Amino acid sequence: MIQEPKLAVIGGGSWATALVKILCENLSHIYWYMRNDSAIAHIQKYKHNPNYISSVELHTEKLHLTSNIDEAVSYADYLVFVIPSAFLSDEMQKLTTSLRNKIIFSAIKGIIPQSGRIIGEHFLQEYNIPLENIGVITGPCHAEEVALERLSYLTIACADSRKAEIMAKMLSASFIRTKISEDIIGIEYGAMLKNIYAISAGIAHGLGYGDNFQAVLMSNAIREMERYISNIQNIDRNIDASAYLGDLLVTGYSTFSRNRMFGNMIGKGYTVKSAFMEMNMVAEGYYAVKSAYKINQEQKKPAFTPILDAVFAVLYQNKNIRNTFNQLTEVLD
Amino acid sequence: MIQEPKLAVIGGGSWATALVKILCENLSHIYWYMRNDSAIAHIQKYKHNPNYISSVELHTEKLHLTSNIDEAVSYADYLVFVIPSAFLSDEMQKLTTSLRNKIIFSAIKGIIPQSGRIIGEHFLQEYNIPLENIGVITGPCHAEEVALERLSYLTIACADSRKAEIMAKMLSASFIRTKISEDIIGIEYGAMLKNIYAISAGIAHGLGYGDNFQAVLMSNAIREMERYISNIQNIDRNIDASAYLGDLLVTGYSTFSRNRMFGNMIGKGYTVKSAFMEMNMVAEGYYAVKSAYKINQEQKKPAFTPILDAVFAVLYQNKNIRNTFNQLTEVLD
Repeated sequence: MIQEPKLAVIGGGSWATALVKILCENLSHIYWYMRNDSAIAHIQKYKHNPNYISSVELHTEKLHLTSNIDEAVSYADYLVFVIPSAFLSDEMQKLTTSLRNKIIFSAIKGIIPQSGRIIGEHFLQEYNIPLENIGVITGPCHAEEVALERLSYLTIACADSRKAEIMAKMLSASFIRTKISEDIIGIEYGAMLKNIYAISAGIAHGLGYGDNFQAVLMSNAIREMERYISNIQNIDRNIDASAYLGDLLVTGYSTFSRNRMFGNMIGKGYTVKSAFMEMNMVAEGYYAVKSAYKINQEQKKPAFTPILDAVFAVLYQNKNIRNTFNQLTEVLD
Repeated sequence: MIQEPKLAVIGGGSWATALVKILCENLSHIYWYMRNDSAIAHIQKYKHNPNYISSVELHTEKLHLTSNIDEAVSYADYLVFVIPSAFLSDEMQKLTTSLRNKIIFSAIKGIIPQSGRIIGEHFLQEYNIPLENIGVITGPCHAEEVALERLSYLTIACADSRKAEIMAKMLSASFIRTKISEDIIGIEYGAMLKNIYAISAGIAHGLGYGDNFQAVLMSNAIREMERYISNIQNIDRNIDASAYLGDLLVTGYSTFSRNRMFGNMIGKGYTVKSAFMEMNMVAEGYYAVKSAYKINQEQKKPAFTPILDAVFAVLYQNKNIRNTFNQLTEVLD
């Protein structure tokens, strides 16, 4: 790249750290915002994020770390948001700089609980960002494997394919293959739904269902995802592509996925509260369930979503877990 | 069922034993053929198959065990073949009884090496069994989980849906859900291809690729399976159904799958011979690779099958494993 894009990463978690690692392969200067001043001091001193994928050695000479979101946003043309969806609104309230003309890529998986919207729509509706300036970065990609430089594939979606291509170039590396897409809506809803299906896989595992059932569940989940998404936006997409099916599988089959772990605890009889206390972290999917259910019910003709409905019934309607899943098994095929 | 169908199971392995266990839930009399006389004696005495899923207690009072294939075949109207595809021809040569008017269900995964045909076509071409008398029983289903009575789903396919329904009834149980289909060809090719993709998953694992890549590989595999099958028979089928995608996942994600295990050893540098010696068993997929590749190449316009081609190159063209898979990663998306 002759003239390097000005880019800032917003967020300090494991996926943010993984993206920074990748971006450092291509950029000589990156602004990196995170809330935690002591983490910033640690990174500057030791070149490692103390809290997330801490094995990764960071190119601190390329990084401008800041706990001032305005500083990062005012510098950059390209903003990569990668913070838990539940915290986005709080972070945005700190912002006094305008987002006008900024190109915003979301690597957030989920839905904004406050607006009940997927990230792209949230930026469009709440901040008047035009659609052609909004993009999405998606896996299948565990941050832990990026840390180990294990080959991973990313899909970069934007209505403006030129911007998707620029972002894809910034995210290319010997251990990363990128692909571009125009299906922001489908990819965002897919990324959100897969967390819910990972919860369902965890619940099933916790209840004692085995690998045979897990395969049936995932096979039903991808068909349910297709029905759900095409009911919202019926365009020609191959739901078996990596950005949808691959992302579902990497999460649904992962024993490290927070969502699957959360589901597993629910299946074993933990309450939501005790599961979160035990895990000491948030499972995005828990909030997504409520919003995803509501969004589906608000459609003219809701899609047939027995898995989502079962997880909603267990988490939000206080329904008996074993009975609910037993009924679900009758509907799956 | 007022009048119970006369049924015989041909084969004494783990999947045969699992099917016998299920069938005993619905039938009062089953002929069960296996080659091994000492296994028969053991089962009759101890009610357990000494060699496969031996935890299962068998209802020996319902079983007529025999090492005479003619005896089993002449008794039954419904024959369930469940022996490794490589051994079918040998077994059939022992047979002097006619197969005329027999209804033949195959629970064999793979391809007959001698004829290079999937099982249904093999029975049609070699034994003149009319298509409406040929059916298929498929998972996703590990025999080990049937032994534990973990909920599993079977798909029963037959051109004559009445016969599929009868077989589905015989295979119903509290821990088994059945579904019928008419897509024998698609299901058979899918069952055969999934073993090849499980080998590819094993090779990738053996080479050190991680979970992110595995998800991409499976996402590409199901799309490749769809291209392959619809190139042979282009009917309306949902490749994401349990009989195709579910079956792929249960095998491709299983650390117990013989095919995946075989691939893993190849990926780690074992020769084919030493891998088979080490495993002390045959991986069906090894033979399937050759036939599947040939069948595809014989089509008017071969389907685009980079994964199959890579496995073929490694196993049959002596190509360098790491280079071949590295090239494959460039083609996947």
